[in-house]
Amino acid sequence: MFSRGGLVAAISLLVLPWTGHDLGFPTLYASAGFSLIALVSTMNLVPLLGPTFVERNLKGRDRLKRNQLEMCLISPLLFLFSAPESMGLICASIYALLLTLFIPFLFTDILRPQENPGALGSPLLSVAREQFPHQQLSVYLSALLCLLSATILGFLDDVFDIRWRYKLPIPLIASIPLLLVYHAEHGNTHIVLPKFIRNVFGHSVVDLGPLYYLYMSLLSTFCTNSINILAGINGIEASQALIIALSIALNDLLYLPLQFSLDFYGFTFGGVYRAGMALGSRELVERHLLSLYFMLPLIGVCIGFLRHNWYPARAFPGDTFCYFAGMAFAVVGIIGHFSKTLLLFFIPQIFNFLLSCPQLFGLVPCPRHRMPRLGPSNSPFIYPSTVDFEHPPRLHTRLILSFLSLLGFTRLTRHPKTKTILSATNLTLLNTVLVVRGPMSEERLTLECMALQVAGSMIAFGIRYGLAGIFYDGDRR
Amino acid sequence: MFSRGGLVAAISLLVLPWTGHDLGFPTLYASAGFSLIALVSTMNLVPLLGPTFVERNLKGRDRLKRNQLEMCLISPLLFLFSAPESMGLICASIYALLLTLFIPFLFTDILRPQENPGALGSPLLSVAREQFPHQQLSVYLSALLCLLSATILGFLDDVFDIRWRYKLPIPLIASIPLLLVYHAEHGNTHIVLPKFIRNVFGHSVVDLGPLYYLYMSLLSTFCTNSINILAGINGIEASQALIIALSIALNDLLYLPLQFSLDFYGFTFGGVYRAGMALGSRELVERHLLSLYFMLPLIGVCIGFLRHNWYPARAFPGDTFCYFAGMAFAVVGIIGHFSKTLLLFFIPQIFNFLLSCPQLFGLVPCPRHRMPRLGPSNSPFIYPSTVDFEHPPRLHTRLILSFLSLLGFTRLTRHPKTKTILSATNLTLLNTVLVVRGPMSEERLTLECMALQVAGSMIAFGIRYGLAGIFYDGDRR
Repeated sequence: MFSRGGLVAAISLLVLPWTGHDLGFPTLYASAGFSLIALVSTMNLVPLLGPTFVERNLKGRDRLKRNQLEMCLISPLLFLFSAPESMGLICASIYALLLTLFIPFLFTDILRPQENPGALGSPLLSVAREQFPHQQLSVYLSALLCLLSATILGFLDDVFDIRWRYKLPIPLIASIPLLLVYHAEHGNTHIVLPKFIRNVFGHSVVDLGPLYYLYMSLLSTFCTNSINILAGINGIEASQALIIALSIALNDLLYLPLQFSLDFYGFTFGGVYRAGMALGSRELVERHLLSLYFMLPLIGVCIGFLRHNWYPARAFPGDTFCYFAGMAFAVVGIIGHFSKTLLLFFIPQIFNFLLSCPQLFGLVPCPRHRMPRLGPSNSPFIYPSTVDFEHPPRLHTRLILSFLSLLGFTRLTRHPKTKTILSATNLTLLNTVLVVRGPMSEERLTLECMALQVAGSMIAFGIRYGLAGIFYDGDRR
Repeated sequence: MFSRGGLVAAISLLVLPWTGHDLGFPTLYASAGFSLIALVSTMNLVPLLGPTFVERNLKGRDRLKRNQLEMCLISPLLFLFSAPESMGLICASIYALLLTLFIPFLFTDILRPQENPGALGSPLLSVAREQFPHQQLSVYLSALLCLLSATILGFLDDVFDIRWRYKLPIPLIASIPLLLVYHAEHGNTHIVLPKFIRNVFGHSVVDLGPLYYLYMSLLSTFCTNSINILAGINGIEASQALIIALSIALNDLLYLPLQFSLDFYGFTFGGVYRAGMALGSRELVERHLLSLYFMLPLIGVCIGFLRHNWYPARAFPGDTFCYFAGMAFAVVGIIGHFSKTLLLFFIPQIFNFLLSCPQLFGLVPCPRHRMPRLGPSNSPFIYPSTVDFEHPPRLHTRLILSFLSLLGFTRLTRHPKTKTILSATNLTLLNTVLVVRGPMSEERLTLECMALQVAGSMIAFGIRYGLAGIFYDGDRR
């Protein structure tokens, strides 16, 4: 029922740009239509193709469900032994296919019949109506190539279970097409310096050259892997990707000279809204439009997938999901030239990464799985998992753990007499939330993490549009 | 040893275009270098990654080897139970990665220092030296997208074993990026009419419009599946792809104004060779250059893979290989605008497809495997496999089989008294060769099929450059 309604709405959105009505940003309507299609098709294809994945041994056991009986009580439709893994492949395929089919819509404004051009008066509104630049098409195609490469590599990771040290540079390889096209197109490698540094150097803009490429490739590695390590409970990967995508889309919308007006007792509010943020720059509008075209379908895919990945999960995302979603973020950050803003939306991931560092780099022992654990058999809650020390830990481990415990990020168990550390909760955001807020149900933990992600995005907007004025003037490239 | 030498040669070829020497087609040298890298890396990576594929259950048993003991006697290094399947994935990954890394070389001529431009006098030689058009970059990227899509879909087919009716349109989906970019770029949909039809219609060129797109998408389906169904013995997929790629590359070379001269007792032969084929058209030179950039690395990959896929095979290509190789041919046929010539290089595949039709469309029963079979236990030869009729076949089956038997394409076994057909050899090119030429070793059969493919290409060249003049004048678009 919902599917059918969604598809009808989607198709009308797709047809709209070709009707010749003046819509401001006709291609954006099409993109919204594709987003709806993404939602509906992900929602329907995941359960349809799940059994095939299980058959081919692409399946995982949910470590946070007490037993299969309990699972079957929760949801009798659940597959008998385990849920399909790597379902991110379906999400990624739908996403890539829709972005491919979107290509002709990039040219809507050239192909559709022209009626009273520029009637709305705003010079910015005509941006969307002029010819879509060929350079932009190359960038779009190379972005798509990056996403496909990330999907292939993610699925290979799922099938072949690549080791960590080989895994880390994988997004680097996947980002090559974009970097090369960026270079071939003589892309911008300048950064704008903050006001006070500007006075020291005497320049307002500095060319980073090759360092800029290093930065961009590291961005893809970071976006991909940071989503991958903040995982372990139902729905966490998809929900964080959803909130980041929504934040990016909201940020993009701020740059569009959207038309909206409100008549209120004879007073008219609105008009061309927020045109100020793009500062009249056609380039900025184009970049953020392109970013929206990538984010809207991603939002659709994430919502559609969450329908099945939400507690109790009947489908797991696998590395494929983290790879393609992370790469989508890196790609829009690069082509939209807002990588610093992008990183601000990753505050919980950055926290999780920094917190994980002692375990990732071997300063504190790292067990195979660091996700929260089940409590006593009569408890419906999950508890922070711990790393146990067979031997008393070394000095540097003790120092790090004591410091983190002081901050409240981990909980230590000490010997009652000797006070040596016997165990510590694992150093991840999920365990920290459980330490701070006490044991809770798995669903609740996902919700609290989502709240953290939203809070992070709000802080990000505060920094970007509140504090940035202190460091930068209007010249934001 | 060979690997090291190959890599050194490859790197020198890659550096050459940047030295500023006048090389005619500097990018072509780089492409040759990439081809060498493709060869060396395929040769080395296939055995290195094979065991991982076997571990993940991507393996196949060779039905034409009597037993594993025999296999181990032939090659003691052989994996114990079966050889890795889907190794086309490695070939495709190397190919796609190299084509991606090739992107900056497309711009060699812009980026390298310019020295005495146009010194060689020929106006055509300067084609390669001018700016590589941005439109060409979009086309290149979309071609790469098609190849990646085909690779993903091929690997999915290997992992999930997609059924035939779903499988057939898969290359259609993979070719969407190219068709859309072709459309978005307002690509040519005209065909040139043969001379005698021209007189009837009064036009020399006809616009096919949407039909042209249908034709192009069917081309990808045909190229992909026709290689996929001419399979079954060691090395057959890779060797046919190799010969087709070589034929296309040779055809491309005919259009390049290559520089070569020969001093012979004071007389100078040569000069700018075969510039006549491009008829002075810069467009034709560019198209065939682009085609070469795709074919040269494919040749390298095929040779490198044949090293392990040749009898007795230690690696199987899987559907992935057929998908990406077939798509590579379709892609160059479309972007190079020589799809008719391309189809001429597929003569053995077309024959095999037409011969298979009665079985594919259910007119003659079709067993699961139609590849040749092993002979009696003391025979080193393989024999044509047969389809047995439990009930006397129907009239249309009898008619088709009798006709094909008359042509010598199949051999029927009849009841000695009633003369009803008891069995027929399966309708494939491989079985037909065995029927015509008698039982032979598996290696020999591969060699004979390669000879057929070469003969097919020679006929193709004959038709294209000999007979075409009867139907067309110089106006070849």
